[in-house]
Amino acid sequence: MSSRPSTKVITLTTDFGLNDHFAGTMKGVILDIAPKARIVDITHGITPFNIAEAAFEIRNSWVYFPPGTIHVVVVDPGVGTARRPILAECSKQFFIGPDNGVFSLAWFRDHTVREITNPEFMEPSVSRTFHGRDIFAPVAAHLALGIAPERFGELITDPVHLALEPVKLPKSWRGMVVKADRFGNIVTNFHIRQFQDVKTAPIKVRIAKKTVRQFAPTYADIEPGELAVLEGSSGYLEIVANQTSAAQLLGCKGGDAVDLVME
Amino acid sequence: MSSRPSTKVITLTTDFGLNDHFAGTMKGVILDIAPKARIVDITHGITPFNIAEAAFEIRNSWVYFPPGTIHVVVVDPGVGTARRPILAECSKQFFIGPDNGVFSLAWFRDHTVREITNPEFMEPSVSRTFHGRDIFAPVAAHLALGIAPERFGELITDPVHLALEPVKLPKSWRGMVVKADRFGNIVTNFHIRQFQDVKTAPIKVRIAKKTVRQFAPTYADIEPGELAVLEGSSGYLEIVANQTSAAQLLGCKGGDAVDLVME
Amino acid sequence: MSSRPSTKVITLTTDFGLNDHFAGTMKGVILDIAPKARIVDITHGITPFNIAEAAFEIRNSWVYFPPGTIHVVVVDPGVGTARRPILAECSKQFFIGPDNGVFSLAWFRDHTVREITNPEFMEPSVSRTFHGRDIFAPVAAHLALGIAPERFGELITDPVHLALEPVKLPKSWRGMVVKADRFGNIVTNFHIRQFQDVKTAPIKVRIAKKTVRQFAPTYADIEPGELAVLEGSSGYLEIVANQTSAAQLLGCKGGDAVDLVME
Repeated sequence: MSSRPSTKVITLTTDFGLNDHFAGTMKGVILDIAPKARIVDITHGITPFNIAEAAFEIRNSWVYFPPGTIHVVVVDPGVGTARRPILAECSKQFFIGPDNGVFSLAWFRDHTVREITNPEFMEPSVSRTFHGRDIFAPVAAHLALGIAPERFGELITDPVHLALEPVKLPKSWRGMVVKADRFGNIVTNFHIRQFQDVKTAPIKVRIAKKTVRQFAPTYADIEPGELAVLEGSSGYLEIVANQTSAAQLLGCKGGDAVDLVME
Repeated sequence: MSSRPSTKVITLTTDFGLNDHFAGTMKGVILDIAPKARIVDITHGITPFNIAEAAFEIRNSWVYFPPGTIHVVVVDPGVGTARRPILAECSKQFFIGPDNGVFSLAWFRDHTVREITNPEFMEPSVSRTFHGRDIFAPVAAHLALGIAPERFGELITDPVHLALEPVKLPKSWRGMVVKADRFGNIVTNFHIRQFQDVKTAPIKVRIAKKTVRQFAPTYADIEPGELAVLEGSSGYLEIVANQTSAAQLLGCKGGDAVDLVME
Repeated sequence: MSSRPSTKVITLTTDFGLNDHFAGTMKGVILDIAPKARIVDITHGITPFNIAEAAFEIRNSWVYFPPGTIHVVVVDPGVGTARRPILAECSKQFFIGPDNGVFSLAWFRDHTVREITNPEFMEPSVSRTFHGRDIFAPVAAHLALGIAPERFGELITDPVHLALEPVKLPKSWRGMVVKADRFGNIVTNFHIRQFQDVKTAPIKVRIAKKTVRQFAPTYADIEPGELAVLEGSSGYLEIVANQTSAAQLLGCKGGDAVDLVME
């Protein structure tokens, strides 16, 4: 990268939606500083203020990007308060956003986190409501230009961490609905790595007062009208129907409880 | 292209929507393999599983792209089943997606189609639910790098073809609503090339129990509250109102019948 | 720019939405002419035909883009009529779109405006309903290639101008709701530059039969359930709640009246 420092990829993940100029303006700021940066939207459709949902989206996406990629995540209900802006490095990729736990699922064990304090790499005038434009975008652009991470601020050891994994109860695991995706698949926080046995053991998944007992390898294995548990493309278990919205059938939403019993 | 093989344009057309990371993750996969590829979204807003709608969208858009463009279309209700992934070549552009008829309107007479079978150009581990990420994106990226089409798999002669044109009945033509666009214009599958006479002859278009008898050259020619038939920007006849949603006035949706009588 | 004429940024702002191929097709046209242009979406989510809303969005965004950027704005209820297509230059950036007032808030005092008349830089066949594809996109692409502005058409001195600022009444100022943003913040057309006193003087803002009396420096200064006036990130006053939708609480929409009394 040292020979072509400015061709780095910068990704954006926000709750800004696409009907306002916000995401576009962040891109203007980036290209004004780093004209060769490649900007990729992961999504701007995070439910407003939903830090947990953003934590899963960036976790599921970032490993597919090339080394040196800079991931900017702006889901920031605390904008304008004392919450810190941070810059982290993990596995040769970079993460920029508010210190509110939004990266809790993204980082592997070995990573470093800095508080961003150097005003030299921010907009000259920082608003109280749009740090995506005034802090996070210009910091990402300067990093893409090849500015060394240590120039943005000091290392910290206490970034906010959110516990987003399922919890062990006496007779079951208590997890949650992360979100319903476009197809109405209900994404949970149960990861197949920890719950391999659902593929073979008898299971009961309780969600929205219903119980799902079937694990299906593919959508096509599910009878019309039936619900099943399926391994989603990111490894998280999903409650799904075949070409129908499971979310509509069950009427559940992000944050709802999901209980798993394996017998 | 041989001197700058990696600057090719790759377009994406899917039913993934923009609230999940899916489209962004496909871009990460592409840029990891082909860092210089130019990625353009045609749309991710195809109605989930609606192959016909996608067939019209890619048909209306692809001819405007430069030679060498690679069009990836992922509307794929059969993902995880035996349906084939295909790579086609037509008029110096490329088409990658599931073999379910989604390209039925795109290709001209002279085209070749291959089944994609070479795992060398797929993700190391192919999931059962997200071939956009695991097969179609990496195949497009490798093609953008200059890998020859024949290395992806063998030619086939029986790709799935959907009949999406209007059908001749004794006294009329039976067509369909393709979709309502953002402005509430009702796009049909009647193409002006085949139905030139609607511009001059008396017509009756029956849709949602109403009859429209007026052809209008532009929106401004339509009186407030009136419906008219108009030649859309891609040549398909549309049922429209002036600055109002015809789709709301008529309450119809993709797949509904449209009957045309020319006297 | 003369040494690398084709790396210019082209932005797009439209009311096309993202569910149709329209925005993608404009990008195909641009890349076919100017393969190195960098295309950035500001937004395609302008309310259909809402010229005023688009005027605020482009005004709030364009100054963040690099010199030489070409801004294409297509909110064009008069497409197909005699309204002129225009190309303007202001502060080393360019603006392309219909002459309907959509740039009323964007331009500073020193700017030039031309009517686009040269068919050489349009699509060979210009439709009556999609000038984004057939005129505005190819004109932007040719400009990005380095074609001189004077070759597109003659200077004009009477572009359409919309009065979008608040109006002085005997005892108050009468302004309007521009839009509700993604978070339910109600954006008004009162700019802090003209109304600095709201930060310190007693105020009454009347909107949707309610009166708001509090100015808040940040969202966190607002008690749950309370409404306040806040300086938005672009300098326009907003009626907001803390992590709740003010637009839902008040039930108002773009175009509604907002009255400001300062005592």
